[in-house]
Amino acid sequence: MGDAKWIYAFEEGRADMRDILGGKGSALAEMTSIGLPVPPGFTLTAQACIEYVRAGEPFFDALREPIRESVKALEQRAGKTLGGATDPLLVSVRSGAAISMPGMMDTVLNLGLNDESVQGLAATTGDARFAYDTYRRFMQMFGNVVLGIGHDRFEELLENRKHRHGARLDTDLDVDGLREVIGDYRSLVRDECQRDFPQDPEEQLLLAIRAVFDSWDNERAVVYRRVHRIPDDLGTAVNVQVMVFGNRGDTSGTGVVFTRNPNTGEPQPYGEYLPNAQGEDVVAGIRTPLPVDALRERQPGIYQQLVDTCTLLERHYRDMQDIEFTVQEGRLFLLQTRGGKRAPRAALRIAHDLVGEGVISKEEAILRIDPEDIVRLLHRNVDREAPKTVLARGLPASPGAATGEVVFDADTAERLGGEGKTVILVRGQTTPDDIHGIVAAAGVLTSRGGMTCHAAIVARGMGKPCIVGCESLLIDAKGRTFRAGDTVVRAGDVITFDGALGEVYAGEVPTIEPEFSSEFRTLMGWADEVRTMGVHANADTPEDASRSRELGAEGIGLCRTEHMFMTPERLVVMRRMIMAEDEAERAAALDELEPMQQSDFEGILEAMAGHPVTIRLLDPPLHEFLPGTDELSSTAAALRSHGDEEGASAQERALKKVRGLQESNPMLGHRGVRLGITMPGVYRMQTRAIFQAAAKLIERGIEVHPEVMIPLVGHVRELAWTRRLVEETARQVEKETGMELPRRIGTMIEVPRAALTADAIATEAEFFSFGTNDLTQTTFGFSRDDAESKFLHHYLHEKILPENPFTVVDEDGVGQLVKMAVRSGRARRPDLVVGVCGEHGGDPTSIAFFQAAGLDYVSCSPFRVPIARLAAAQAALRSAREPALVAEGAGA
Amino acid sequence: MGDAKWIYAFEEGRADMRDILGGKGSALAEMTSIGLPVPPGFTLTAQACIEYVRAGEPFFDALREPIRESVKALEQRAGKTLGGATDPLLVSVRSGAAISMPGMMDTVLNLGLNDESVQGLAATTGDARFAYDTYRRFMQMFGNVVLGIGHDRFEELLENRKHRHGARLDTDLDVDGLREVIGDYRSLVRDECQRDFPQDPEEQLLLAIRAVFDSWDNERAVVYRRVHRIPDDLGTAVNVQVMVFGNRGDTSGTGVVFTRNPNTGEPQPYGEYLPNAQGEDVVAGIRTPLPVDALRERQPGIYQQLVDTCTLLERHYRDMQDIEFTVQEGRLFLLQTRGGKRAPRAALRIAHDLVGEGVISKEEAILRIDPEDIVRLLHRNVDREAPKTVLARGLPASPGAATGEVVFDADTAERLGGEGKTVILVRGQTTPDDIHGIVAAAGVLTSRGGMTCHAAIVARGMGKPCIVGCESLLIDAKGRTFRAGDTVVRAGDVITFDGALGEVYAGEVPTIEPEFSSEFRTLMGWADEVRTMGVHANADTPEDASRSRELGAEGIGLCRTEHMFMTPERLVVMRRMIMAEDEAERAAALDELEPMQQSDFEGILEAMAGHPVTIRLLDPPLHEFLPGTDELSSTAAALRSHGDEEGASAQERALKKVRGLQESNPMLGHRGVRLGITMPGVYRMQTRAIFQAAAKLIERGIEVHPEVMIPLVGHVRELAWTRRLVEETARQVEKETGMELPRRIGTMIEVPRAALTADAIATEAEFFSFGTNDLTQTTFGFSRDDAESKFLHHYLHEKILPENPFTVVDEDGVGQLVKMAVRSGRARRPDLVVGVCGEHGGDPTSIAFFQAAGLDYVSCSPFRVPIARLAAAQAALRSAREPALVAEGAGA
Repeated sequence: MGDAKWIYAFEEGRADMRDILGGKGSALAEMTSIGLPVPPGFTLTAQACIEYVRAGEPFFDALREPIRESVKALEQRAGKTLGGATDPLLVSVRSGAAISMPGMMDTVLNLGLNDESVQGLAATTGDARFAYDTYRRFMQMFGNVVLGIGHDRFEELLENRKHRHGARLDTDLDVDGLREVIGDYRSLVRDECQRDFPQDPEEQLLLAIRAVFDSWDNERAVVYRRVHRIPDDLGTAVNVQVMVFGNRGDTSGTGVVFTRNPNTGEPQPYGEYLPNAQGEDVVAGIRTPLPVDALRERQPGIYQQLVDTCTLLERHYRDMQDIEFTVQEGRLFLLQTRGGKRAPRAALRIAHDLVGEGVISKEEAILRIDPEDIVRLLHRNVDREAPKTVLARGLPASPGAATGEVVFDADTAERLGGEGKTVILVRGQTTPDDIHGIVAAAGVLTSRGGMTCHAAIVARGMGKPCIVGCESLLIDAKGRTFRAGDTVVRAGDVITFDGALGEVYAGEVPTIEPEFSSEFRTLMGWADEVRTMGVHANADTPEDASRSRELGAEGIGLCRTEHMFMTPERLVVMRRMIMAEDEAERAAALDELEPMQQSDFEGILEAMAGHPVTIRLLDPPLHEFLPGTDELSSTAAALRSHGDEEGASAQERALKKVRGLQESNPMLGHRGVRLGITMPGVYRMQTRAIFQAAAKLIERGIEVHPEVMIPLVGHVRELAWTRRLVEETARQVEKETGMELPRRIGTMIEVPRAALTADAIATEAEFFSFGTNDLTQTTFGFSRDDAESKFLHHYLHEKILPENPFTVVDEDGVGQLVKMAVRSGRARRPDLVVGVCGEHGGDPTSIAFFQAAGLDYVSCSPFRVPIARLAAAQAALRSAREPALVAEGAGA
Repeated sequence: MGDAKWIYAFEEGRADMRDILGGKGSALAEMTSIGLPVPPGFTLTAQACIEYVRAGEPFFDALREPIRESVKALEQRAGKTLGGATDPLLVSVRSGAAISMPGMMDTVLNLGLNDESVQGLAATTGDARFAYDTYRRFMQMFGNVVLGIGHDRFEELLENRKHRHGARLDTDLDVDGLREVIGDYRSLVRDECQRDFPQDPEEQLLLAIRAVFDSWDNERAVVYRRVHRIPDDLGTAVNVQVMVFGNRGDTSGTGVVFTRNPNTGEPQPYGEYLPNAQGEDVVAGIRTPLPVDALRERQPGIYQQLVDTCTLLERHYRDMQDIEFTVQEGRLFLLQTRGGKRAPRAALRIAHDLVGEGVISKEEAILRIDPEDIVRLLHRNVDREAPKTVLARGLPASPGAATGEVVFDADTAERLGGEGKTVILVRGQTTPDDIHGIVAAAGVLTSRGGMTCHAAIVARGMGKPCIVGCESLLIDAKGRTFRAGDTVVRAGDVITFDGALGEVYAGEVPTIEPEFSSEFRTLMGWADEVRTMGVHANADTPEDASRSRELGAEGIGLCRTEHMFMTPERLVVMRRMIMAEDEAERAAALDELEPMQQSDFEGILEAMAGHPVTIRLLDPPLHEFLPGTDELSSTAAALRSHGDEEGASAQERALKKVRGLQESNPMLGHRGVRLGITMPGVYRMQTRAIFQAAAKLIERGIEVHPEVMIPLVGHVRELAWTRRLVEETARQVEKETGMELPRRIGTMIEVPRAALTADAIATEAEFFSFGTNDLTQTTFGFSRDDAESKFLHHYLHEKILPENPFTVVDEDGVGQLVKMAVRSGRARRPDLVVGVCGEHGGDPTSIAFFQAAGLDYVSCSPFRVPIARLAAAQAALRSAREPALVAEGAGA
């Protein structure tokens, strides 16, 4: 056993010994040490649990004597003997890990009772019914959680007896009835365990302790740990505590109180109180608990003591507490305190108020908000209280609630949207061809795709609710219906869905407006004060740009130009450009596109006046702008059958072109800078449009900071070639306008080779923007869509990958490339500006990594901007606390 | 001008000043310095050329005086004056870069002649016809190469005069005729250049020198440098040399002699001699030159002097020489010597013989062979002398010549092949479905695809001739014909093609058998002695394994198991496995596949007895084993129209499965270890088959070294999971057989993340094998097929990439990952075995990199094994000479 201390009396522990004593044990110790009325007890450490798991029986044998000594000390304090024949000492045995884990064995109350001591209890309390009922409860709990006999088996026996005695409630059973039940339980244990119910209190205690230890590795606990990513080697502590009884009459009771309202954050105690009851009676549903206020009238002294305790504990722990208490015959006992769970709104208000009350600093307030809570605050959500019928569940791709008529294609969505109808676009999956439908729809629902499929990315970018991968929807697009289970939904039927929950409901379900409380604004202001990274937004339209500004973005980190060609009237011209049979025809189409692009850029640059706007030149492969081969060949056939030879052959020309553009792996194909180099007219047109827009705004006195970003660069010469084209074009516009036009030219870093050769690339780039979506795809060799639908879920389930690398940046692989590129890029060009514009730019864990890697800014969807602001502030605070980590991050 | 020396007299130079004096200049200087009869002269340095390119006119002006001084020195030596009125000094002006470049201006002879000195020449020689003919030649050459007037324009004028004078040959023109021609030339120059033909010899010389300098950057030279990867900043030297005349009668003449036969390597002088002629007369085709032997009878003394000179120069330069000489009136003059170009066979023989003669060491002999020459030696080639009609040209994907009947589908290829016919499979492109056809065909010809498309890789792997991307073939597979220009070739027609040249011919063209000469075997033996890297082969069948052994492979570095499922009878079972609707059905199919796999492995392990065989578990995505959607839906429709409902719905089930397996980017999709983990039955079956095969062979007393290789690992846990499965399965076989089975388990490193986290991966891997094909795809973000057909050629043409990274490993990007992985893998596991099995394993440049990176072995197609052996030997020798490079390579 060595010299390790395996057991601590409550008097010996402290709040900061959570790793040793568990959450409950350290709280009990802390409350004891500050003089609060806690029934005495002791805690077996989590390390004892781990040692038992490792070494087994011999270790447990060696624990017996220390346990015996601890019990003896408890007996001396209480002046009673565990399971003594007169006035017996009874104890509770509770598990309590450092991190709360509902998967483990929880509680055995009233331990120490046996056939003899129950009589002692009856005699001492003068209440035989109480004593036998307590014994019955003990046997049932012990039998269930320690001996492993199903709860129902006990309930069944109890019900039988109640039935026989004509009793409606448990409390209607008299002592005889209870004795019979105890006899039944005894037989049940004998039948199930081939042994008698243990009568020796010490044996009861040892069995209960061992059961807690064993529960650390039971299946539920293991699964819970996996789901919640709790390490397997923490172990659980075991608390053995003298029993107090809330069921000793009208001056007794049990309750739970939050020091503030956990839903709203209002600074009043909030909770429930059940007179004359033990804790588990609440669970048994015998009586409805009263609001804790009720105690004020019933036992005003106790209530005041409780309120004072709330204040004391909140100040002591510097956070809102969730407190369990019992009143025994007019005396208040505290059984647990812990940080209280709270709704997002309450979390903000409490953090804010605690600063006002001088309890915590602004920095602590910032660190206490879970950035994901911000998501829920910022979107309209389905009213969780409202009645509803769940039709299906999918992946929660973009938060927010949407209600509307079902449509099955983008054109209809656009048409009905134009008529002022609210529609939900339902598709197998979406393609860039559907953009106008997504724009027009209130929300998007797809039966296929992962969290980062086209629909998900586009919808998130637009802040539009979206559920993807809703595989139980059987869509018949031609028949314009979908089936979900037995329900058939037709085009025009109304549905509702909640993109934060991933649930689809029949009909209209009430939704709740998001709120920007003043506490929210104040807290975000504090966050902005402390963060060191900039927060930019990914935005492609003037509307998105304005929204981003409202949400606090300090620039646009990614303006995708491809979506600008997707409106029907532009798509026609774009297709003409692609299909051009000679340079003149192509140039004509480009000339037609140029003023359209220019007006896009004017709008965006104006909305972002004074702030940088990073515009990415055309990135996707050209076939994304053309119809699919199926569509073309069926249109051709249709036209021909109507005698339209000319129309048919035009379709066939297009078909040939599309076939020529088809690629085995478009993700790795002819796109980005590769397109810019092989078809320079497009980049030249886009560059002209950018700088003509800039010139126009400058003339109007508006400050602009356009930055031109070249996508998919892997070799410095690709960038050098394209940079020259952009520079020459910009200078041409300067010559034409006679103005000096500000600009920066830089590149995405989104293939491994770019990161590996960042020193060379930095000679041609004024800024780097990590495209961590594509960088993750190429570093892992994962096609995002294929991986998420085919094997990634399996990998996550089997813990082969710790996280979805498209959600949380993979630090070891992708992150290593990011750090290499930042380091070698800055070594070559010290004033290199470095940011990230992949989806990870809005993920708090990833943001912490980007802070450590030394990035200048993150860029994310407009609706994630507040989250990123908060997460960046947290990252700055944490890295200031852990300077070693930053140094390693920036220098490793 | 600084202190730089821009001009060297021949006496001042040496052989090792090639970078300064160019190839020709340094050879002339060297021959001068060893006392050989070289007409005196001087050389303007290549640095002068570069400085002229940089600084232009002012620099050239400053050169005038030094040139004048050099001419003066020459005049003093010769006792004549340049262009003097009596006995004029004439010179030749020749370009001569360090690397021979036919793209540049080459030669102006007889410079110094003008209207006056031509008379002096006539007087001195007493041969007016000679003098005027020489002047005519000079004007023509100068007019063409210096003044840039088309050669044809001069020829036309000459022909007119000959016609008018009734002359058949140039030599039939008398002095008057020649004077008229000179007059015509004078007018031509005046018309074209708006000036008179320059009469001042100094001006002639300066113009000629400047023309040589200018020619460094003419288009032909630039293209030539790009094609041959010659740096742009070398510059060319200019040689100015006193003229000697081979056209001064029967005791004069001009010739070229190789010191050994450049076709066979036989150790006798070999060349041509043209009596009474200047060098360009050979080109003009006036007379057929005689074999150089002819000189023996005509001028035995001169002949002996020439033979002695051959011996002297060969010993001096320690290599076979290509010597230009002129005999003027019984005196031998040497005008050039250089290493002689030679056929592959000759190269081997010469290197071999020079070792025997004690001229060079074995190591030098090894370094002198171009590994690519070995390719040509090892394959049957089209007889280049035979008459033939070229139908089309494509990419030379796999060397060797094939003749056979054209077939348009794999099934027919297999059927006719089974009947003993020799067939050529002609397809748009091939897929894994075509494997049986490729196996049966003598060669494969496709109209699409790049050097690394499916057909190319498979054919190279099988050592089968192949041409791909033959875009001028218009294939009508349904009509079973193809059109090439005006020729229509039908199924059953015979064609021939040469995969080393990329040419397709009509009908049967004679081919030449490859030879393994004894010199070849000796040289390869020497190579094996010095190389430090192992050479393994990529081989999937016992036949390939045996062939690899014959070609010197020391193991199999990549045995792909997927091809083993491609024969029709196995494909059926494989498809059943994939289509299985429950685990039992899948297990049954796997059970059926197991003995087939086992027999494959037995054959391969036996063929490689005593050597390691690295078997890669199944890698490609499953849809590669299923028919295409088009095929399935048309079959279904056909079956239905014939009333076969059951058959049709089976096809539709398959169609649904195929659709379910389809991926956006299969290269980055559900394949490799991802398949192994999500469908573990396949890997388990393959592992059983491997170790059962091993057990069977061990029982028969055969030594086996099976190594199991897991493809596409990106995270150590993927490998750990799979390794456990393999280990458990192997131990199970050990238990069943009661034998101890040798094994190694390792992984491919073929995605960047694997290289970046190689230290972690090394904890689970006993060996790494770099899959540089996929690693190149993922590092660049290039899909190989898409890149080669869409933009890679453009990139190479525009010099955006220096090399095709799928041919020569990209050192900066991919190579950096390789070095990182080797270093960190070995740091974690010092005995880690590291090899490469991508296409680069057979590329000499890449092999040199792998040597520097510290790899243990390379693995390549069987037919590239000898090349790899030689390249590895060269790399070892070079790295031994340049230890700094190795250190940097292994440690950077």
